[in-house]
Amino acid sequence: MDFKEELKIRANYAEEIIKKYMPEEVGYQKTIMEAMNYSLSSGGKRLRPVLTLEACRIVGGDTDNAIPFAAAIEMIHTYSLIHDDLPALDNDDLRRGRATNHKVFGEAMAILAGDALLNFAYETMLKESIGKENPERYLRATYEIAKGAGIYGMVGGQVVDVQSENMQIPKEKLDYIHENKTAAMMVGCMRAGAAIGGADEKQMELITDYANKIGLAFQIVDDILDIVGDEAKLGKHVGSDIENNKSTYPSLMGLEKSREIATELIEDAKRSISKVTDDTGFLDGLADYILSRDH
Amino acid sequence: MDFKEELKIRANYAEEIIKKYMPEEVGYQKTIMEAMNYSLSSGGKRLRPVLTLEACRIVGGDTDNAIPFAAAIEMIHTYSLIHDDLPALDNDDLRRGRATNHKVFGEAMAILAGDALLNFAYETMLKESIGKENPERYLRATYEIAKGAGIYGMVGGQVVDVQSENMQIPKEKLDYIHENKTAAMMVGCMRAGAAIGGADEKQMELITDYANKIGLAFQIVDDILDIVGDEAKLGKHVGSDIENNKSTYPSLMGLEKSREIATELIEDAKRSISKVTDDTGFLDGLADYILSRDH
Repeated sequence: MDFKEELKIRANYAEEIIKKYMPEEVGYQKTIMEAMNYSLSSGGKRLRPVLTLEACRIVGGDTDNAIPFAAAIEMIHTYSLIHDDLPALDNDDLRRGRATNHKVFGEAMAILAGDALLNFAYETMLKESIGKENPERYLRATYEIAKGAGIYGMVGGQVVDVQSENMQIPKEKLDYIHENKTAAMMVGCMRAGAAIGGADEKQMELITDYANKIGLAFQIVDDILDIVGDEAKLGKHVGSDIENNKSTYPSLMGLEKSREIATELIEDAKRSISKVTDDTGFLDGLADYILSRDH
Repeated sequence: MDFKEELKIRANYAEEIIKKYMPEEVGYQKTIMEAMNYSLSSGGKRLRPVLTLEACRIVGGDTDNAIPFAAAIEMIHTYSLIHDDLPALDNDDLRRGRATNHKVFGEAMAILAGDALLNFAYETMLKESIGKENPERYLRATYEIAKGAGIYGMVGGQVVDVQSENMQIPKEKLDYIHENKTAAMMVGCMRAGAAIGGADEKQMELITDYANKIGLAFQIVDDILDIVGDEAKLGKHVGSDIENNKSTYPSLMGLEKSREIATELIEDAKRSISKVTDDTGFLDGLADYILSRDH
């Protein structure tokens, strides 16, 4: 099957999973459920849950066991977007063509909806894991998500990103931001899926390398598209990095060198994953897609 | 030993545990660690970690296994205070006599520090539970905390509290707020400790009843102290509920009836816990202290 067709099917499946785990909008606290679900259902590529399920599958696991984790990962991703958009942070009014959470529900509710989504992710992962065989796998999987999302992962990267606005920073610091803000959650969600599937340490290492490298390439391509991308296809304004004097791979080493580095990362990622399984069709396709995407 | 002496010893022990689990202030993301630790180390009664350890002990568990949970519970409590104090919520400049987090680190960092503390709580609970005997107990314990902290617990209560500002609400809704905003985390932290200690379902129920009732009494006493309390002892302004036209037990049914209800809750709580163990000295003392406290 064509890769894009396959990705669409898997993303739609992830979409169904997310819907299934959304909190029901009832009770005195109904408004917070509405605020959570408003942002949870606002689309996106759904790459992270797809990665979780695939990491579980390639190590021979039953992907049904990873389903609550696939939903939870999008809850964490969504909370980080809601808080990023707040007036005190990026102060964005629009995301994916819709009003941002605080524009619809007010700032207080948006802060609480983000908090609620982060916490509900853990509630979702843990609740259904109780009573299953191999409980230590679910402890480990939930920990991998927590690590990827936290101060030694996504939040750590966000903080340094916020503090690096409007200044040129060295490549080492930029790599720290990319590795933590973007790649750490991809690593976390693949390691979680692999843990649930019963991966051994060698498989874990190789999957980590794949996830980290596609994450880094993803961010470099994002920064390239901010210069050469098509606004209509991207669905967002381009050129904002240059306007904000933001350090990026293209600003530090030029477009061509940035493309070269992204290409190398993708080749390395594919090499690592080929050592885990022969059945690498989807993950190879995904790596190539990250490199060649125009939106 | 005198109860107050015993409580002090246990609260100091909780303080040591919290210190031990604070993130080290190093790396590019140092500022967020500083912001987290600033609020984590700002004192408080530390009742929640004390309750977790005691719930584990009375069901015959090894309290050492509950130590990371004791630290994590204060991280969650602290995150909720940081976000509560934000300009979009209560807009408080002072807490326990110190500048609030956003006053010291700015609003963006305070939002991220709250997020980071909530997530770090899960990282802390899960990390050390991996590899231990009875992994299903730790899954269950972490779930109990998540439930107590989330939309069917603390966050749910906060949302309805925020939405009920400056209006009179019926007793049923006020009970919902108390049960969720205040009691749910006490229930969560005692159930977590009990789960780690290997409690059976009957013990769980009785401990839940104790925790819920001391939580409700705690909130009623808080509201009574806001009317009759001594500002110097409380370390905060009294009379704010009346100024803000806030619904409370005293406003709905008078001071005397409120005291009666709190007293009944405490008696019921002690009755429940006496069915779990004969060794109820500390928890009886704690229940009485919640009723008779003047700050």
